[in-house]
Amino acid sequence: MLNRQWLLKCRPEDKMKPSDFEYREIELDGNNLQPGEALVCNRMFAMAPTMRNALNNAKDSYGFSVDIGDTVKGLNVCEVVKSRNADWPEGSRFTALSGWEDYAIVDLTTPSPFLSRLNQDTEPADALGLCGGNAMSAYVGLLKVGDPKPGETLVVSAAAGSVGSVAAQIGKIKGCKVIGIAGGPQKCQWLVDELQLDAAIDYKTDNVRESLAAQCPNGVNLFFDNVGGDILQAVVDNIAYHGRIVVCGQVSAYDSDATAPGPRDMMKIVYWSVRMQGFLLSDFPEEFEHAQQDLLQWGKEGKIKHYEDIRDGFANLPSTFMDLFSGANTGTLMLNNDLPGMR
Amino acid sequence: MLNRQWLLKCRPEDKMKPSDFEYREIELDGNNLQPGEALVCNRMFAMAPTMRNALNNAKDSYGFSVDIGDTVKGLNVCEVVKSRNADWPEGSRFTALSGWEDYAIVDLTTPSPFLSRLNQDTEPADALGLCGGNAMSAYVGLLKVGDPKPGETLVVSAAAGSVGSVAAQIGKIKGCKVIGIAGGPQKCQWLVDELQLDAAIDYKTDNVRESLAAQCPNGVNLFFDNVGGDILQAVVDNIAYHGRIVVCGQVSAYDSDATAPGPRDMMKIVYWSVRMQGFLLSDFPEEFEHAQQDLLQWGKEGKIKHYEDIRDGFANLPSTFMDLFSGANTGTLMLNNDLPGMR
Repeated sequence: MLNRQWLLKCRPEDKMKPSDFEYREIELDGNNLQPGEALVCNRMFAMAPTMRNALNNAKDSYGFSVDIGDTVKGLNVCEVVKSRNADWPEGSRFTALSGWEDYAIVDLTTPSPFLSRLNQDTEPADALGLCGGNAMSAYVGLLKVGDPKPGETLVVSAAAGSVGSVAAQIGKIKGCKVIGIAGGPQKCQWLVDELQLDAAIDYKTDNVRESLAAQCPNGVNLFFDNVGGDILQAVVDNIAYHGRIVVCGQVSAYDSDATAPGPRDMMKIVYWSVRMQGFLLSDFPEEFEHAQQDLLQWGKEGKIKHYEDIRDGFANLPSTFMDLFSGANTGTLMLNNDLPGMR
Repeated sequence: MLNRQWLLKCRPEDKMKPSDFEYREIELDGNNLQPGEALVCNRMFAMAPTMRNALNNAKDSYGFSVDIGDTVKGLNVCEVVKSRNADWPEGSRFTALSGWEDYAIVDLTTPSPFLSRLNQDTEPADALGLCGGNAMSAYVGLLKVGDPKPGETLVVSAAAGSVGSVAAQIGKIKGCKVIGIAGGPQKCQWLVDELQLDAAIDYKTDNVRESLAAQCPNGVNLFFDNVGGDILQAVVDNIAYHGRIVVCGQVSAYDSDATAPGPRDMMKIVYWSVRMQGFLLSDFPEEFEHAQQDLLQWGKEGKIKHYEDIRDGFANLPSTFMDLFSGANTGTLMLNNDLPGMR
């Protein structure tokens, strides 16, 4: 059978461009499965900022990495097409780390930290959206690392993004005053009107440091940071005694050769007794099931609003991924595979 | 009665110099004490790096600050000379935050986070040394913030210093492999021979990053940082998964107008799930008594070696303090007051 693939052709220099990726079609023989193996197809591909880092340097990767000549990897919805594993009959669906390709033969007896079985009634879009990797990162980062308390002031950067919007809404559920930082009046309006945050700061037009000082008169107790750089510094300048900074991502530096530096003055971290903590979703495998239950429940109750931006067509994988870094998406970005002979 | 004082004359620009301080003698009337008050004298003055920061800017101070025209402040050994407070009869001794002056009238009914009564058999040098502010900072920072586990690799910067040498030795007591970073072959030899650390790195001649890579093949689990800057970066480059960085001080930037920046690439903090945490001794008042007991006990058992560098003479306060930043001291630096009519 024909297997379409998108490979990493070279490590992106600064911003990604189409020529960093290579399209290929190869033959895959799905008839010689070993015991425990299954032939699986990728039904839907998720786009997560962290995937960009895996393209840079094998050492600096998110538990996984992409070598040159490898398929690009993400947390996707897969479906079993043919099986020699009784636990995973034909039609079984799961989310897992998989490549940008139509099909793969996988040994489903090998434990994988990201493999998660889907109920038959879970929509692929929910699996990658409301309770996908981005939402679960928000969940474990905010609740398990950040430890928000009712009445505290929580600031979230990239608050209109796929991770930030969930972190901000969980903050509201937990009784925090929540300030979102986002780019542009439309996103900021959306944060206040739709997500019911207490305030929004537009980093493109506002002075973030001064706006935070005005919105957080008692300082920032908890900062959920997806961005880093100048925005991190502006929050550090407004941090409260015993403040916590959950370092989820530093997207300000992802699609470039620059790095996102830490605070300019570490004595501020000493004097204000601040805790800064990085984390990976894969640190908390024991939380996955509970997180997904909570997120689905909160979604059902309307406490978490979640938006998906679903694109179509395998051919569009690189361009869709690049859209993630230009802010051209509205909601969690994913791509429906146009598998030949499916749907 | 005559009261000698050293005041802050102006905020030091870059390195401190003698003209930043002003000597003054004033009259103090110790005869009109209010109920609860006592006339106390300063018997011995401690020199701690953090005092330098209090001279810079009122906002960036260590729970206390020194305004221009104020006496310089430190954690000192005081003795009650005259009392209208039954809990503190004449002759009572305590450590407390006090100024560079012979005498002061203080209201001992007001709670103070740093006030700690001394047993009559505790030597002033032990009160400021083995279980003084520096040693207690090492204790709470390493044990309460760092949470060392047996078998882990602990790195301590400024390991021959007053805080670092105690942190390193407590690390050994707790079963860690301990690497000390210090300046010069003499200090490094002392760390290995006298303090029995597993290795020492001389930041003046060694490449710290490479030496750490060689000494810590499984990475640095815990870093107790007194220095910051390039040394912090070298450790971050060698941090282990789930590493912790206790940010105790950043002495590389104290006696200058520069600041000590955080890590160059915060994604390292994300990928390695690193916790960086600042703290103040005053965060842990409930630990003081226990810390002092443990430290005195370990000192008695020879598990913690502690060295004091005791100077003499009120006139020498500024020059002694400046010695702290040129590395001219060997052990915890303190100054015995030559009170007229005492000793």
